[in-house]
Amino acid sequence: MSNLNPSSGDPSSRDLNIALVGATGAVGEVLLGVLAERKFPIARLLPLASNRSAGTTIQFGGEALTVEEARPEAFDGIDLVFFAATGSLSKELAPEAAVRGAIAIDKSSTWRMDESVPLVVPEINPEALDSHRGIVSSPNCTTIGIVMALEPLRRAAGLKHVVITTLQATSGAGKPGMDELAAQQEAVAKGEEPIAEVFAAPIYNNVVPLCEVFREQDGYSSEEFKLLEETRKILGPTHAGGDVGISATCVRVPVSVGHSANLLVETERPLSPEDARAALAAFPGVEVVDDPSSNRFPTPRDVVGRDDVLVGRIRRDLCSDRLALWQVSDNLRKGAATNAVQIAETLRARGLV
Amino acid sequence: MSNLNPSSGDPSSRDLNIALVGATGAVGEVLLGVLAERKFPIARLLPLASNRSAGTTIQFGGEALTVEEARPEAFDGIDLVFFAATGSLSKELAPEAAVRGAIAIDKSSTWRMDESVPLVVPEINPEALDSHRGIVSSPNCTTIGIVMALEPLRRAAGLKHVVITTLQATSGAGKPGMDELAAQQEAVAKGEEPIAEVFAAPIYNNVVPLCEVFREQDGYSSEEFKLLEETRKILGPTHAGGDVGISATCVRVPVSVGHSANLLVETERPLSPEDARAALAAFPGVEVVDDPSSNRFPTPRDVVGRDDVLVGRIRRDLCSDRLALWQVSDNLRKGAATNAVQIAETLRARGLV
Repeated sequence: MSNLNPSSGDPSSRDLNIALVGATGAVGEVLLGVLAERKFPIARLLPLASNRSAGTTIQFGGEALTVEEARPEAFDGIDLVFFAATGSLSKELAPEAAVRGAIAIDKSSTWRMDESVPLVVPEINPEALDSHRGIVSSPNCTTIGIVMALEPLRRAAGLKHVVITTLQATSGAGKPGMDELAAQQEAVAKGEEPIAEVFAAPIYNNVVPLCEVFREQDGYSSEEFKLLEETRKILGPTHAGGDVGISATCVRVPVSVGHSANLLVETERPLSPEDARAALAAFPGVEVVDDPSSNRFPTPRDVVGRDDVLVGRIRRDLCSDRLALWQVSDNLRKGAATNAVQIAETLRARGLV
Repeated sequence: MSNLNPSSGDPSSRDLNIALVGATGAVGEVLLGVLAERKFPIARLLPLASNRSAGTTIQFGGEALTVEEARPEAFDGIDLVFFAATGSLSKELAPEAAVRGAIAIDKSSTWRMDESVPLVVPEINPEALDSHRGIVSSPNCTTIGIVMALEPLRRAAGLKHVVITTLQATSGAGKPGMDELAAQQEAVAKGEEPIAEVFAAPIYNNVVPLCEVFREQDGYSSEEFKLLEETRKILGPTHAGGDVGISATCVRVPVSVGHSANLLVETERPLSPEDARAALAAFPGVEVVDDPSSNRFPTPRDVVGRDDVLVGRIRRDLCSDRLALWQVSDNLRKGAATNAVQIAETLRARGLV
């Protein structure tokens, strides 16, 4: 394992200087909480944001910290920068952080499919971090929950194809998404028309089969395409024939936090529901919640505030050899903040920072 | 076409005596509206209900009608009885109606899989009505929307397999389901815990991957199994190999009216998205709402109060030859009341009543 980054050192040597771009956003807030919970070794925390939010105050470790404007010079002397903001800030500033010797851990989609950028879920492909060149990407919040459920099955029996329908929370679109659901609920209670700005149609008392935007070329949404591409990059070849096939439809639902996905999985070798259950239960970061006899299955409400990905309704398809299962995860935690902090922890554990 | 029922006659001969069991329920109320809208030829309308609701008053055709208790003798002199109540009332009383010469049109699941009972969506299999023996079943509200989207594809290219994820409205469980969502929303607004009685987990700000109850033998829900069985009974053999394969997961979502379903369809012969779109658009009762370039796709909100089944997001799967599509329908109208009234109209048009 080479050690190319100038800020690298003995894993236990020193506390780190951390910057957080997007400190006032939905993921940024949760990220601050996760850093504190997990006692990440921080010498200094520098909260950054676009100039619109600069000057506001956030709380961390019992202190009030003033949010500064995210500019290249802010990264001088910083070891790690979490980007939990818009893609345009990541695009402009992550290379600036890297050039200054920091490692950028980016939550946006900007760098994910760049061949020189590792796309990492630490339970699955931590070794990808070793080749980083100053930028590491954390996957889409939808992708993370799904690959956490797929990887144990891949290891047990190989993976050929997965049919996926997601039911995604409004916070997948950040605070504006959560606020829009709340505002629409209020408007309807007053007898007014709900106004849709963040989502392409009203989301209160409705479901919307479009996450993000449509691609011109094929009628897929950008979210669906990301799910396909990112899953393949993270899992690599999953069967003798190559990469996993993914048939995805992403749907927004009126739930504030917690992404769900229904999966129909074709494995390479036969895998019984019992063996699938055992493989999932043994995988770090996955909890099986699955007992039809007592009506136990996971819902978004069960996963809010938790880091584990919950999996249930594991059963043999009635009309094929495939496995059906249902997965939920907290899109702000394991889907975003926690995975980013785990990447930081893994960089440190591998002596890369 | 034989004409076995004693109340049969010339289709245009006379107005009919109609009874409605479940006149005070969610479907019953909509059914009264649909009968009026469609100017169904009614000589007399007799509203019936369980003894709990008997004595209440409903409005029909500008008149206040008192709801009577549903008892066998109530069916004397009645031509058609709509059952829009619990399965136990249908089980007990539909044969009593038939024995008295009426035709029972049942919305409950009680008789659907009985071999002597036609299970009918009039646009698809009206001829099944000809062999009725006094009871006709209307399919599950989820099944109806889905078979309306599948039948045009079957006619165009045969059908081998469909992977289905449903997102079902709370009114699929009648007024108690709708009321539970509203009550939970209020409770949460007051800072109280939501109480779940109708559904197996809180449905407000949540999604619940269980509709109805779990079957002991295979981990499927009764709703998922009904969708499989009913679709096969309605469509009959759909390809050279026999019946269509169905892989289904049914999910309840916090939407009061409007069931959605995401479908991945394997046809017997190649079918392009363009040809699928044309076949769907040409089918009576189906409207294609599908233009990604202007963010047009159907949502539950678009279908409330409408009889057409809306279909959109018609596209070629990125990783196979299958077709992906998204379907929504008003579960109280085409999914229940309208289909039942259409059955009555078709019985009449075929000279069966």
